[in-house]
Amino acid sequence: LTCDPVVEGVHFDRDTAPELIGAKAVGRNLSDLAAIGAVADYLLVSLLLPAGFGATAQDALLRGIERAADEHGCAVIGGDTSASPGPLVVTITAVGHLEGPPLLRSAARPGDRIHLTGPVGGSRSGRHLRIRPRLVEGRWLAALPGIGAGIDVSDGLALDLATLLRASSAAAGQELGAELDATAIPIHDDAQRLADPLRHALGDGEDHELLFTWRAGAALPDRGPLADVARRPFGRVLAEPGLWLRGADGSRTRLEPLGHEHPIQR
Amino acid sequence: LTCDPVVEGVHFDRDTAPELIGAKAVGRNLSDLAAIGAVADYLLVSLLLPAGFGATAQDALLRGIERAADEHGCAVIGGDTSASPGPLVVTITAVGHLEGPPLLRSAARPGDRIHLTGPVGGSRSGRHLRIRPRLVEGRWLAALPGIGAGIDVSDGLALDLATLLRASSAAAGQELGAELDATAIPIHDDAQRLADPLRHALGDGEDHELLFTWRAGAALPDRGPLADVARRPFGRVLAEPGLWLRGADGSRTRLEPLGHEHPIQR
Repeated sequence: LTCDPVVEGVHFDRDTAPELIGAKAVGRNLSDLAAIGAVADYLLVSLLLPAGFGATAQDALLRGIERAADEHGCAVIGGDTSASPGPLVVTITAVGHLEGPPLLRSAARPGDRIHLTGPVGGSRSGRHLRIRPRLVEGRWLAALPGIGAGIDVSDGLALDLATLLRASSAAAGQELGAELDATAIPIHDDAQRLADPLRHALGDGEDHELLFTWRAGAALPDRGPLADVARRPFGRVLAEPGLWLRGADGSRTRLEPLGHEHPIQR
Repeated sequence: LTCDPVVEGVHFDRDTAPELIGAKAVGRNLSDLAAIGAVADYLLVSLLLPAGFGATAQDALLRGIERAADEHGCAVIGGDTSASPGPLVVTITAVGHLEGPPLLRSAARPGDRIHLTGPVGGSRSGRHLRIRPRLVEGRWLAALPGIGAGIDVSDGLALDLATLLRASSAAAGQELGAELDATAIPIHDDAQRLADPLRHALGDGEDHELLFTWRAGAALPDRGPLADVARRPFGRVLAEPGLWLRGADGSRTRLEPLGHEHPIQR
């Protein structure tokens, strides 16, 4: 079960097409199911509609939600609509089930190699509205014997990696860290076009690729949904705290977690 | 599964105590579970926090949510927090299960007597913040052989009755209506203090009592959770469309559905 809102002025702009808003709301939640290796079953949709968001826009929004649900084999089974004095808010609750072991944030171990299901950075140029939840990849990864931990990149690669390491440290009873190879991080073309692509890859978020760790010594399968994933890992998990970036010149610098901090960090 | 938001400026005011906001958000959703006769299990909590809703207020809000969840034997198992440029919004998804047959909106039949689990009207004076979800009553009713249809009074007695009749008409393949006895509708003390108490009882909403129909000829048990409910029904289901109010003088007037219409009526 997962529940996540998209809010006008935060996750989309006033002039975003309603179909895309609906699709994004679905994609964010299905990505959360993908991150645990679940199959998506049902969606509940709660809409807060500002004055002036008329019937045509509502129809388009619901069409975007239903199409995205259809595309991933799940069904909208209920919800609620309220008028609101505030911005447009679409809150979706997604219900899924596991057909095998879950993919866990807490399962990383020292020595694990760090991978992504696809390149990251620059999502703000439009990709953040066209989320491809990695449901197939998540289920597939969760069932593999070489798998370590997994999480989806929503807040930014560095911040989500820190979250994964925090969960894994608690589970291992040992402070874990990671070192990333700056030359090997898969950077999206959308970020390559920007100044400082690496910074965007580490911090932008809303990529919704799966970040996962893979046991040292295990072979990453070259068939299945990950056949297109870069074979080369771009980092490894350390048996000491801290996030480190190894540069092309061999230098090692401390990486501050960049990305979208949640307003409540308890 | 049910999902319902409470929004600042719609369901509570800026100066409402955060504990009460949290409790109301839980109560509304548990009332939806009560209305189908379910047992409450889990809650997901999605918060949209405006600037200035600080840590103390957040703590109080979460305390209100957790206390209300505890009180009804369910657990907060997850959720999400986002900053928002708009009003405070608390969206709760509640998960329950059935231990017997569901209480359905669609099960009313001509001749059924109409009851409430408690008096209605005047909730705006404060009761709307202190919802008592009728979980025990809903489960108990759903299992009784004399039960017809059931719904919780959230939008207003007349409007929720119209919803129940619409669902039952569709299921019966026959247009159903109802006649209410103006002298027998259980009116809350909060409405008795107002001008035109009957209008408030019919239209105010946010009562969260269960409105249910009972088969003609079946005896309403005088034990169990409904022992305190008025034994006398205040209306009956008709085999013809329309909502009618029978006055003390025997006059019969058509009742327009009063109450809070949802902005989308599909």
